[in-house]
Amino acid sequence: MATVFHSLVTVEEALELVDKSLGDLKPLGTEKIPVTRALGRTLAENVLAHTSAPPFDRSTVDGYAVKASDTYTASEETPVILEVVGKAVVGVPFEGDVVEGKCVEIATGAVVPRGANAVVMVEFTKKLADGKILVYRPVSPNENIAQTGSDVSAGDTVLRKGTVITPREIAVLTSVGLKEVVVYRKVRAAVFSTGDEIIESGAALPIGKIYDVNGPTLTAMMQELGAEVDFMGILPDDYGLMVAKIGEALRSGYDIVVTSGSTSAGFGDIVYRIFRELSGGKVLVHGLRVKPGKPTALAVAGGKLLVGLPGFPLSAMMVFQKLVKPIVETLSGINPKTTRTVKARLALRVEAGKGKLEMIPVQIINTEKEVVAYPLLGQSGSTHILSIADGILEAPENREFFDEGEEVEIGLLSERIRPPELVVIGSHCPGVDLLLDEMNIADVKVVNVGSVAGWHAVKSGEADIAGTHLLDEKTGVYNAYMLERLGLKGKAVLVRGYGRRIGFVTQKGNPKGLQTFEDLLRGDVMMVNRVKGSGIRTFIDIKLAEIGVKDPVKHIRGYDYEVRTHTGVAAAVAQGRADVGITLEAVARQQDLEFIPLAEELYDFAVPKQRLTKKTVEKFIQTLSNKTFQEKLKQTLPGYRPLTETGTVVEG
Amino acid sequence: MATVFHSLVTVEEALELVDKSLGDLKPLGTEKIPVTRALGRTLAENVLAHTSAPPFDRSTVDGYAVKASDTYTASEETPVILEVVGKAVVGVPFEGDVVEGKCVEIATGAVVPRGANAVVMVEFTKKLADGKILVYRPVSPNENIAQTGSDVSAGDTVLRKGTVITPREIAVLTSVGLKEVVVYRKVRAAVFSTGDEIIESGAALPIGKIYDVNGPTLTAMMQELGAEVDFMGILPDDYGLMVAKIGEALRSGYDIVVTSGSTSAGFGDIVYRIFRELSGGKVLVHGLRVKPGKPTALAVAGGKLLVGLPGFPLSAMMVFQKLVKPIVETLSGINPKTTRTVKARLALRVEAGKGKLEMIPVQIINTEKEVVAYPLLGQSGSTHILSIADGILEAPENREFFDEGEEVEIGLLSERIRPPELVVIGSHCPGVDLLLDEMNIADVKVVNVGSVAGWHAVKSGEADIAGTHLLDEKTGVYNAYMLERLGLKGKAVLVRGYGRRIGFVTQKGNPKGLQTFEDLLRGDVMMVNRVKGSGIRTFIDIKLAEIGVKDPVKHIRGYDYEVRTHTGVAAAVAQGRADVGITLEAVARQQDLEFIPLAEELYDFAVPKQRLTKKTVEKFIQTLSNKTFQEKLKQTLPGYRPLTETGTVVEG
Repeated sequence: MATVFHSLVTVEEALELVDKSLGDLKPLGTEKIPVTRALGRTLAENVLAHTSAPPFDRSTVDGYAVKASDTYTASEETPVILEVVGKAVVGVPFEGDVVEGKCVEIATGAVVPRGANAVVMVEFTKKLADGKILVYRPVSPNENIAQTGSDVSAGDTVLRKGTVITPREIAVLTSVGLKEVVVYRKVRAAVFSTGDEIIESGAALPIGKIYDVNGPTLTAMMQELGAEVDFMGILPDDYGLMVAKIGEALRSGYDIVVTSGSTSAGFGDIVYRIFRELSGGKVLVHGLRVKPGKPTALAVAGGKLLVGLPGFPLSAMMVFQKLVKPIVETLSGINPKTTRTVKARLALRVEAGKGKLEMIPVQIINTEKEVVAYPLLGQSGSTHILSIADGILEAPENREFFDEGEEVEIGLLSERIRPPELVVIGSHCPGVDLLLDEMNIADVKVVNVGSVAGWHAVKSGEADIAGTHLLDEKTGVYNAYMLERLGLKGKAVLVRGYGRRIGFVTQKGNPKGLQTFEDLLRGDVMMVNRVKGSGIRTFIDIKLAEIGVKDPVKHIRGYDYEVRTHTGVAAAVAQGRADVGITLEAVARQQDLEFIPLAEELYDFAVPKQRLTKKTVEKFIQTLSNKTFQEKLKQTLPGYRPLTETGTVVEG
Repeated sequence: MATVFHSLVTVEEALELVDKSLGDLKPLGTEKIPVTRALGRTLAENVLAHTSAPPFDRSTVDGYAVKASDTYTASEETPVILEVVGKAVVGVPFEGDVVEGKCVEIATGAVVPRGANAVVMVEFTKKLADGKILVYRPVSPNENIAQTGSDVSAGDTVLRKGTVITPREIAVLTSVGLKEVVVYRKVRAAVFSTGDEIIESGAALPIGKIYDVNGPTLTAMMQELGAEVDFMGILPDDYGLMVAKIGEALRSGYDIVVTSGSTSAGFGDIVYRIFRELSGGKVLVHGLRVKPGKPTALAVAGGKLLVGLPGFPLSAMMVFQKLVKPIVETLSGINPKTTRTVKARLALRVEAGKGKLEMIPVQIINTEKEVVAYPLLGQSGSTHILSIADGILEAPENREFFDEGEEVEIGLLSERIRPPELVVIGSHCPGVDLLLDEMNIADVKVVNVGSVAGWHAVKSGEADIAGTHLLDEKTGVYNAYMLERLGLKGKAVLVRGYGRRIGFVTQKGNPKGLQTFEDLLRGDVMMVNRVKGSGIRTFIDIKLAEIGVKDPVKHIRGYDYEVRTHTGVAAAVAQGRADVGITLEAVARQQDLEFIPLAEELYDFAVPKQRLTKKTVEKFIQTLSNKTFQEKLKQTLPGYRPLTETGTVVEG
């Protein structure tokens, strides 16, 4: 049924095939452009100074240009008297000579007149009424003078080929008098998305369709590489049309055409055949020995490159970084080795590679002491994982695992990505969203993984703050018991949050008449559950145990239908995928669903003790204590209630 | 004579004054733009998911959608038989139900049909002739299914306000169906250069004039901050004209107008008066308690900012980074705290601050083990220093010094700056330029500081390679003795370079008939010297000692006229600033000057032993050994000569 990828090649083999097929993988060419438009471009030639700098002997202070020997006897007690014979202003040199006993008033940056060989600073002189001055300090020859060519001499190499032009290089280029500069020309790239199921973002989403993520994303990645890129739109899986459109792009002068999707060796794999037709059989790669990235195709057609990337956005992005980026960089004269990497400590052990290069997406977090990398091991199609993936950990073919705590090198997904200022990991809460809005700080990372994972993140130091609502089934007390259970006494504290009302959420009017946990056992009831480790899940499991339910997955329909957030529960009920779930009153009301109250839970914040002095954490707790915020919380979120202890440390 | 800066203010005070004067220093506004044009912009609102992801239960594999319970008894020995009742392709869902004993062929990404709750991978099935399949493995409920909303649920906050949009954010935005996004609007900036002495780069340079560096450079720095910036040209020091032009810019909708130059409290200080007139007396800052940066002015006119920066490019750049950047970032909704810094070990002790914030330009070098920062303590107007300045070390007001070896935080001058791949520190040689061209690698930093400083850089590990030509006065042997003198035996090696002929350089025809070192003592002869620590300087001092010259600065005119490079010597002679210097034959001939041979010196390369295996160093030595390079060296550079040992380790 499925096409088989016959001979998978490594990335190195793929690059070598491209190199051979193109004759030589090298910069496409050069162009001369104005220095004022050269920011971010790469120098294609060494730059020599055409003039010297300073171009003349220049005063570095305001004062008087003198013959140094005239001042040798000067002191506070025995000042020397010199006659001022003229003035040298910036841009207007003094046209005479300085001879013994004379001097010239001079400004910083002005030309030192002939005959003078030093400048006395104005601070060490006094003007007399008769056009003379007193000099209170001696100067040595060359004192306060920047000598011609002492900085840069004509003929010096001031910038080397291959240098990326930053404002500093623009300063150097203009200071040696250059108006134009020779740089490598930009790569011209065309990006297509393909697939019958793909529609442009923004339109309503018919069942079975998904939004085009790769088109805009790969276009942006090309832009970040400095390419001139055009997004050519979405092509359906129509062989003739695809051959026509991609072929047209090849003939329009693009150096590289990138497609994504339709490459999987499944029913619809046609990219390979299209590339074969367009390249006259010169498909170089049909399957990459990389995980993810197997469904990658590469061909050369008329000296132009054709690249087919996987359909899943994160896979497409990672294969782009690994395979397309170095090619585009080499074609643009950028050294591919300059990719920004970050050293990080791996938070968890990960199994890897096993005969294939594996690219593992990771999230990085700055704990103030070090950078920690979290491997993200979920579905490759996940938007959630996409939104928190900062970089890639590469596991070579022969690597079997990376150990917890190992130092690893992370290649960032974008040069602009950096570790956040405040990291909130734990249970999802609309109150936290409200609080962070109120704080108004940038670079906050919020990771909704449930209460238990939040506590573990506090323990390991990856979280600055963890939102938690965990019920101790023995004592009926929320959260505090976790400090002891995880051995965090003295290491972390619990800051009181607020009360949140939770209950059943059903369709408007509660059509199935659900009131108790026993109702979940009914054959006509489909529930939606939360992921393990979330506070609500713990509450559900405690309640089911109370009524004696063992092995709930067998007895409750939908018990294994797990979503990550409160809104996820409400959405499942609203869309009829489930009849009931347990969620926050605030979320149920927001979606205009029925809400049947069950309990009030305490939503608190766990904080590592040493983070209490971190500025952003201080601001978080301060905002929580703030009456304006508390009032807003109550008004905005039904079922929310600030408590007398809100914002204070209640344990630890 | 000079204007006095009455009350210098700190940067913090300046920012507070701006904040008060503008009412509140906050983002200027927002705008809605297409997601496809949002790269690099900053989100002005939280982004909520409007739809769930996946928007439907989606198969994550190619295979068959089944009822999990139908497969529980399946094994390799006892496969289960199921009837295939249809097909679900991506974008084309199967429209029926899956009931007991039936299944639907399904592709990765396709909608899981109603009734099915798991997907069996195609690898674990076998197709039979009669439209049935064999299933060899059981699946659990939900296996190989990505559940609706399990990733993102409608209403979830997927991106937070203040987030900078990278390709990853574009992926997230499109995956939740957004076509447009609300971002902070760009700051509109106008940049002027001012000063009678300033002319546009590219034109010939009349005496007393200098090229405009700040205009293009500050424009580029504004661009890097994401501002919409226009360079408005150079204004002469003409009060009326400046008031008119800057006033016009203020009325044209620019949020901030930046000038540079003409701010020094010297003869031509008029920026302060212009700002006073334009702002109706609201000059907030006239003098910053920052070194360099005293000549900085700041005013608010009609809600718009006026900033006058110092004239020296590096000073202007540093004050821009410290004062203007945070303002522009805040106005654009970017968190100013996200400036990229690099941790580095300080190579040398530096005196600092003393009651003023001091910004010390530094060069950073990656030694493979750590990043080392070199303070650059030269003239603030230096192009050379400008070209190697990577970042800024800030010394707070109360700091008296930074110690050698101290760990410091360096703020980079541009996000694009990174430590180089190969660092060559030492004596300047056109042969090295030729060799590096031949190697064709990017990210090489060449620092011409003379042979002795090169050796010290090898010792401290900052240099990968040091070019050296130092003569031992006792033995007459070049370079090798330095290994012992610096205690580098076993720690560094000496790689043989090549021979270079050196001699006197004079005007064509040798008008003053110079032949020997004794001639330098003549009253009618002005020499140009090299900086201390360079090989030629050592050669000169040895030769002068041989003829018994003591205290040469007193007896030789121009002995204290020091330039940094061979080309600098030739340029000084060519332009008549000196009659004679000692330089390379290659350089003298290139400038078409007279050359009187004195000696052949050995130009070798010192390399730290552990760097011999560094890839770029290996390539350097390999290229040096290469016959093609050696032939090119001989042909291109008169007086150069490869030796039998060239490219081999001769000592250590």
